[in-house]
Amino acid sequence: MLSSAAREFRDALGSFATGVTVITARAADGSPVGLTANSFNSVSLDPPMVLWSLARQARSLPVFQQATHWAVHVLAAEQEALSNRFARAGEDKFAGLELDTDAAGVPLLKGCAARFSCRTAIQHEGGDHLIFVGEVTAFERSTGRAPLVFHAGRYALAAHNDPTLPQPRSARLAGSFDEDFLGYLLGRAHFQFFRQFRVHAEAQGIGDAEWFVASTLSLKAGLDEAAIDAAIAYSLGGPCGPALAALRAKGWVEQDGEGLYRLSEDGHRRALQLVAAAKALEADVLGAIGYDRGAVLKTLLRRYVASTEAGLPDLWV
Amino acid sequence: MLSSAAREFRDALGSFATGVTVITARAADGSPVGLTANSFNSVSLDPPMVLWSLARQARSLPVFQQATHWAVHVLAAEQEALSNRFARAGEDKFAGLELDTDAAGVPLLKGCAARFSCRTAIQHEGGDHLIFVGEVTAFERSTGRAPLVFHAGRYALAAHNDPTLPQPRSARLAGSFDEDFLGYLLGRAHFQFFRQFRVHAEAQGIGDAEWFVASTLSLKAGLDEAAIDAAIAYSLGGPCGPALAALRAKGWVEQDGEGLYRLSEDGHRRALQLVAAAKALEADVLGAIGYDRGAVLKTLLRRYVASTEAGLPDLWV
Repeated sequence: MLSSAAREFRDALGSFATGVTVITARAADGSPVGLTANSFNSVSLDPPMVLWSLARQARSLPVFQQATHWAVHVLAAEQEALSNRFARAGEDKFAGLELDTDAAGVPLLKGCAARFSCRTAIQHEGGDHLIFVGEVTAFERSTGRAPLVFHAGRYALAAHNDPTLPQPRSARLAGSFDEDFLGYLLGRAHFQFFRQFRVHAEAQGIGDAEWFVASTLSLKAGLDEAAIDAAIAYSLGGPCGPALAALRAKGWVEQDGEGLYRLSEDGHRRALQLVAAAKALEADVLGAIGYDRGAVLKTLLRRYVASTEAGLPDLWV
Repeated sequence: MLSSAAREFRDALGSFATGVTVITARAADGSPVGLTANSFNSVSLDPPMVLWSLARQARSLPVFQQATHWAVHVLAAEQEALSNRFARAGEDKFAGLELDTDAAGVPLLKGCAARFSCRTAIQHEGGDHLIFVGEVTAFERSTGRAPLVFHAGRYALAAHNDPTLPQPRSARLAGSFDEDFLGYLLGRAHFQFFRQFRVHAEAQGIGDAEWFVASTLSLKAGLDEAAIDAAIAYSLGGPCGPALAALRAKGWVEQDGEGLYRLSEDGHRRALQLVAAAKALEADVLGAIGYDRGAVLKTLLRRYVASTEAGLPDLWV
């Protein structure tokens, strides 16, 4: 149980963002030992040295005090579950994991952003923790993996800021919106994407509103007109009737025995082609902005959609 | 000049994300000294202790070796310029900065995410660096500031991941798009925003396409029809003519002596009201998703717009 002052101190420390590591070693009986730590940092380039610290009360302290070698794994963004697994006590943390072994016999985890094999160099006093300084005997790095980040007591996503991106500009005329106005950015980004997609839809003979209706029916077959309106009238800015009628005239959409709308066989085939084209566009875009930025952008847009939906329909149930 | 092996080691270390700190102290002659460091970390809760390390070749090493007290400033996302200032040698790093002073006389910077005043406890050996361990005598924290993050040799933005956000769902029907498809997320987020805005536009008597034309004229007065089309036809999905005619009929838009279009006095007044409503909506949304996430979302959308525009017009020149 932390005192109030200790909790405030811990919260203040939490304002310093860190990566997340798992430190592993082998106990005297040969069993693998590991724990999650964010107290890692670099120390020296020549000789190559790193440090981390461990609470004196940690159950694995004796193992690390006696270990001549240990390894540091810098976790990637998608390894949050691994971080949680090694942060908990009392279970077999290594169960089911495929392991490598380094030259000193230390168990190594796979799929990390970087791994450092270390020889214990010094153990320093540090209050209620011991500071382990190790000399790095081998290391490897996976390029292009977004890091797992810890900040303010929670996991975070990180994306590179870009010094080549100019500062957002202000409106030249008083009372208009600036270049970093969220409503503008959302619309601009959406229409820039959609404009490239539209070329494919037009090649298949349909316009914007018809695609909205057809893509809704590609997600859910067997809807009546009111259900389609409930799903997309807010995107269309009006009822779906005209677009639905146009799709029926073009043979994309048919009615089943109960009068519900679904894509025809031909409409389904054409919609598949358009979805494939849209996915290819997405791949291009993610390549252009960088996959780490793309992953963060998607997560934030999903948070946006979930935080602001205010009763809009869920297309996915 | 780093050897190739040293550079690879430094790059591997860079895969561990860190916050950024500025460490300050007072030299024997009373002058303030400071440097940027990302080698900071917590050590002990009881007693409260932190550490950081400094290269033996650093010009300020003698100051910190002799200093009995120093302070650590955890920088906030908007303090990138301060980080750069204290990372460079040779200028008066404190010039023009408003400073506080702690109980031990150490100069303190303002506007940081957290500050720690420390008494030197121990100096440890660490290869080509010295490790400074300090006992924290006072600290303070600003809540809600997004952190400045350093990763892979560059500044990064961080936003909290949210464990309450469910995993994106897959399409129930084969060949459709999944819930984390970028094109869907951009459209959904845009239309969710625009749907709330539309209520205000309708109250002013205009529809979606008319607002796109009016807001373009609120950014740039004196455009001909072709220029408006060049700016927004890709958003409208067609030419602006009908919306422009409707705005003229409603008295929002007038022509100047050269036949160029601009908002009328009444149109300008109404557009101002709508821009104010849109800004209020933005504030609501940023409050709902969190300002740190909102700042990262905007930066990533700007990067998206810049990376994929492919010849679309620039509304801001």
